[in-house]
Amino acid sequence: MALALSSEAQDLLFREARTANTFTDEPVGDEQMRAIYDLVKYAPTAMNQQPLRVLLVRGTEARERLVGLMSPGNRAKTAAAPLVAILAADLDFHEELPKVFPHFAGAKDLFADEAARARSARFNATLQVGYFILGVRAAGLAAGPMAGYDAAGIDKEFFDGDHTVLAVVNIGRPGENAWFDRLPRLAYDEVVTTV
Amino acid sequence: MALALSSEAQDLLFREARTANTFTDEPVGDEQMRAIYDLVKYAPTAMNQQPLRVLLVRGTEARERLVGLMSPGNRAKTAAAPLVAILAADLDFHEELPKVFPHFAGAKDLFADEAARARSARFNATLQVGYFILGVRAAGLAAGPMAGYDAAGIDKEFFDGDHTVLAVVNIGRPGENAWFDRLPRLAYDEVVTTV
Repeated sequence: MALALSSEAQDLLFREARTANTFTDEPVGDEQMRAIYDLVKYAPTAMNQQPLRVLLVRGTEARERLVGLMSPGNRAKTAAAPLVAILAADLDFHEELPKVFPHFAGAKDLFADEAARARSARFNATLQVGYFILGVRAAGLAAGPMAGYDAAGIDKEFFDGDHTVLAVVNIGRPGENAWFDRLPRLAYDEVVTTV
Repeated sequence: MALALSSEAQDLLFREARTANTFTDEPVGDEQMRAIYDLVKYAPTAMNQQPLRVLLVRGTEARERLVGLMSPGNRAKTAAAPLVAILAADLDFHEELPKVFPHFAGAKDLFADEAARARSARFNATLQVGYFILGVRAAGLAAGPMAGYDAAGIDKEFFDGDHTVLAVVNIGRPGENAWFDRLPRLAYDEVVTTV
């Protein structure tokens, strides 16, 4: 079956896109990040929560602090990438609900419980991490998402306790030998069942 | 700045796409679901974990069981949608690592701890929920993801304890009055900061 999405777009976002481990020196500007955000902001979250927050690590000193908090295997590429973004969940996202979910006055009060609020923040911001990675690709750039880091250290160094890191993403144009061979994907019948 | 992704694809996946609350009667076939999966399977997960599992609820009796486990406000649309998918995380995804991450023999052993494994399963399968929603849109269909349900009840009724539900998604062609007005999105400067 043919999808409605053009084959060029399928290739750009999914089939040809790959997690990059090396990048060229070409910088990634704020206007590119703005175009990415202004696309992916429309993708859905529960009750329009939008808990994702993005910290662009541009300063030399900030980059060094971040590199020191990455797992050893991620340090060299984090140091070398044109741009590194820390993607985090805002644990106090509910403060924005009167603005982003205005037709239901009680929305904020549903998240008074801190543990339940943190679960919702993590879930919805993680959906947005997925959208963000595809948005980087939509801009013609490559993303290198990483999960290996000292999460408590990043939360302490870069946030004031009301955000928690979900992923660190290198962003740029892919460099030489940017990726490994494509790893196997599970087949449809291994993932999808019918009842 | 212009994105590399065509404006038609931007509209299909993000700008014009909306969370649907009503659907036409047109069925959604297995070949459409296969095309969606064969696109979104390429999007990245940490260590290629791919913990998402999809249960298509097609049988009348299964649909009734699911409707009874949805929040009251979600029951009518879950009963009426052409297709309903339960998206879940496989808490034993690590059993597949020798196949999907074959170059690192110790991968499976990294996830011996049950709590750490559950966190990784939830995080990566939630990324894949985001990809799946965009994949439904890539097929020219509308998705209606829902978070309001009895999660423990669904896990018990539909899974044998080794999967946990992350979202229930109605899928089909949008019907009459399918959506509410677009809710406000946070501005770039409310979400993205630089250090």
